[in-house]
Amino acid sequence: MAQKPSIPKGTRDFGQIEMAERNYIFDTIRSVFRTYGYSQIETPAMENLSTLLGKYGDEGDKLLFRILNSGDAFTGIDYDGFKLEDGSYNSKALSLKVCEKGLRYDLTVPFARFVVQHQNEISFPFKRFQIQPVWRADRPQKGRYREFYQCDVDAIGSKSQLCELELVQIVDKVFEKLGINVLVKINNRKVLAGLAEICGFPDKVVDITVAIDKLDKVGLDAVKEEMIEKGLTSEAVAILEPVLTLSGTNSEKIAKMRGIMASSAEGLKGLDELEELFGYIEAAGIRTATEIDLSLARGLNYYTGAIFEVKALDWQIGSICGGGRYDNLTGIFGLPDMSGVGVSFGADRIYDVLKGLDKFPKDLASATTLLFANMGADELRYVLPVAGALRSAGIPVEIYPDNTKLKKQFDYADRKHIPFLSITGGDEVAQGIVSIKDLRSGEQKSFKKDDTEGILEFLA
Amino acid sequence: MAQKPSIPKGTRDFGQIEMAERNYIFDTIRSVFRTYGYSQIETPAMENLSTLLGKYGDEGDKLLFRILNSGDAFTGIDYDGFKLEDGSYNSKALSLKVCEKGLRYDLTVPFARFVVQHQNEISFPFKRFQIQPVWRADRPQKGRYREFYQCDVDAIGSKSQLCELELVQIVDKVFEKLGINVLVKINNRKVLAGLAEICGFPDKVVDITVAIDKLDKVGLDAVKEEMIEKGLTSEAVAILEPVLTLSGTNSEKIAKMRGIMASSAEGLKGLDELEELFGYIEAAGIRTATEIDLSLARGLNYYTGAIFEVKALDWQIGSICGGGRYDNLTGIFGLPDMSGVGVSFGADRIYDVLKGLDKFPKDLASATTLLFANMGADELRYVLPVAGALRSAGIPVEIYPDNTKLKKQFDYADRKHIPFLSITGGDEVAQGIVSIKDLRSGEQKSFKKDDTEGILEFLA
Repeated sequence: MAQKPSIPKGTRDFGQIEMAERNYIFDTIRSVFRTYGYSQIETPAMENLSTLLGKYGDEGDKLLFRILNSGDAFTGIDYDGFKLEDGSYNSKALSLKVCEKGLRYDLTVPFARFVVQHQNEISFPFKRFQIQPVWRADRPQKGRYREFYQCDVDAIGSKSQLCELELVQIVDKVFEKLGINVLVKINNRKVLAGLAEICGFPDKVVDITVAIDKLDKVGLDAVKEEMIEKGLTSEAVAILEPVLTLSGTNSEKIAKMRGIMASSAEGLKGLDELEELFGYIEAAGIRTATEIDLSLARGLNYYTGAIFEVKALDWQIGSICGGGRYDNLTGIFGLPDMSGVGVSFGADRIYDVLKGLDKFPKDLASATTLLFANMGADELRYVLPVAGALRSAGIPVEIYPDNTKLKKQFDYADRKHIPFLSITGGDEVAQGIVSIKDLRSGEQKSFKKDDTEGILEFLA
Repeated sequence: MAQKPSIPKGTRDFGQIEMAERNYIFDTIRSVFRTYGYSQIETPAMENLSTLLGKYGDEGDKLLFRILNSGDAFTGIDYDGFKLEDGSYNSKALSLKVCEKGLRYDLTVPFARFVVQHQNEISFPFKRFQIQPVWRADRPQKGRYREFYQCDVDAIGSKSQLCELELVQIVDKVFEKLGINVLVKINNRKVLAGLAEICGFPDKVVDITVAIDKLDKVGLDAVKEEMIEKGLTSEAVAILEPVLTLSGTNSEKIAKMRGIMASSAEGLKGLDELEELFGYIEAAGIRTATEIDLSLARGLNYYTGAIFEVKALDWQIGSICGGGRYDNLTGIFGLPDMSGVGVSFGADRIYDVLKGLDKFPKDLASATTLLFANMGADELRYVLPVAGALRSAGIPVEIYPDNTKLKKQFDYADRKHIPFLSITGGDEVAQGIVSIKDLRSGEQKSFKKDDTEGILEFLA
């Protein structure tokens, strides 16, 4: 009968303290999203597989969690027809027979689906945020989970660089509030396309992009080598090299590239966008450092304009936030010409940074402010209205449910980090008072039973 | 290429306004949970099927959404071995071969699993709440969804009736804050057991309970008939009848039952519990009406003490909140003797009641307070710091991203119910002011660019 309970690998339980810490992150992010007029939506955990398949590449398709059709899923299938020569079965084809639905893999594709499905109800430009878990059948490892939250914010239906600015402002504010020093790296996909054009391989944007993406990890020589492997000539690589090692201020970088990229209309368009965005950034007074980084070329294939990546400056970890502009996101669902831009905050990595830098507020651990010890039924009835008045004032108050040894009740307050304890026994009841002790300072005070204001002041 | 996108039946998208309304419900419930010292936990959407199966009866097992194992789920299975005589396949057995995980069906079983798994880290009595979606492969119909949120609050590790009281207090406060008049019906499973005992069929508690549960729907005669069908004698039914039609105050009901149930120790224990609870309810000053209702016998089989159900008084709908005490919940996972009590708030029904009674706050629809019209790049750079200052003060502010016709920008403000609009053009820039119009009253005022306080006052 008794089983040793566990949870699926790669998933997590969140207890009281982790939840308080995670809610602190989500609440901070949400409050900033809201001051910029972004409104929250939620989509179902399950999407039709037809919505999800083919959107994340072959590898992504394999990592989708699929949901078995309910009812009799297995009848009417010719299993032998799915048998391969080596005796195994064609899992990909068979899974489509028994599964119509999958768990969402990110928030971007469900958002695109949402926009297309509800296009007649939406006021464009549509500024939405979404904070929900996603699921990936990845091999679990340190820092990589099969269930994790994404916090996405997107504006869709406008090509204005003001949207890009707002995302940079949001990033700035979120990390200011969280107390994390960051650097916002900015690139533009059109500039990358311009690079491919000027070096004579306009159809190799993706290959060049993927190679550049590795610059930080493998260094310049390995990137050049990969470009040659992908079919670029050494002349082409030589054209690209000065751009990859570009230095100077953002304005200087843009100016230098204007010279190099004069023959590419698309590249110049990208530089115009960057210049406009940095102009807005200056006007808005962004506190956070922002920097053009051409080696920034996030793997995703759908960005068409700005590309963002946010790095924590004081803690070694990958990107803690990133995103970009996409022109074709809703096209896959039949709604073309809908340009949007968004970023996603990585809650788990932000959590790790805050933990590592010890930046979580100190009072998150104590959910309860005051514990009334349980001294028996009469005393209990006496303190109930006192507790009620404090709760009405918003103070989290507990009454220990059982009339047990005080030691045990003390331990409970201690383990739950409850800062105030009231031991109100027969004497106090007789005098019409309550006594409250600050367990941190040792200070103890007595109050008339109905002196809610006095008690509130002591607890503050 | 283009597909018409849709979502799985029985699931829902929540747009801006529904989310604001739903968050209002969740935030209200959460804030009350917190003032009673309950702390939030979250568990994974996916649980091992070994955790879920057998906990909800055969019908529940069928309604579990199962998740296909990742990788090659289909190889190594002898499909012919699962073929039944009629040519169909044994889906139940086959699904166990290809699925190890399922989506959670409620929050109670994951909570029990959590308590057992983390028993060494938890401070008992453990007061937790949990607000997360659950999934059931039920046939979708009006008001019944395949994905819906549950809001559960439980205290585990204490047998004190103070825990029951706290749940009644929480119910009282939640519905006071939401502006819904409710009646809290209270029963006790031990009293039901006492009934079974005094009528001579102590092993028929469940049958009697199930029959009584239908009293409201089918009436007294049908309930009596069902009891006879279940094997009770007409003498036994006659003993039960006066209890089923009991009237009077709660104290009167308890007193009458003490007489009838004098021969049942368990029944008397249940009456003691009810009496203690109602004593606390009086001492705590509960605003909401509370009533003993012996016909209240929620279908679930695991309640062992108090049983709760909350009805909206001014809107016709089923129970909007309910729960009870269970002594054996964690026993299935190997941790016996852990008594707990909890209730679950039905967010979807509460939503329907608030909609039906038009009780949602009026300002939920407008997420943004002020829209700056976009009058061009220079004006934009001029208003950016103004918008920034207001946002820093917590005001949701938007700047229309595109420099398009004012009509279009007006329409955007209108559709998003944005109450204030600022048209700050070249003249205002020259004068160093911003003009803001209250779109509801028509009042228009001008402020110095940096008069944030004046603007805040106008927007308040």
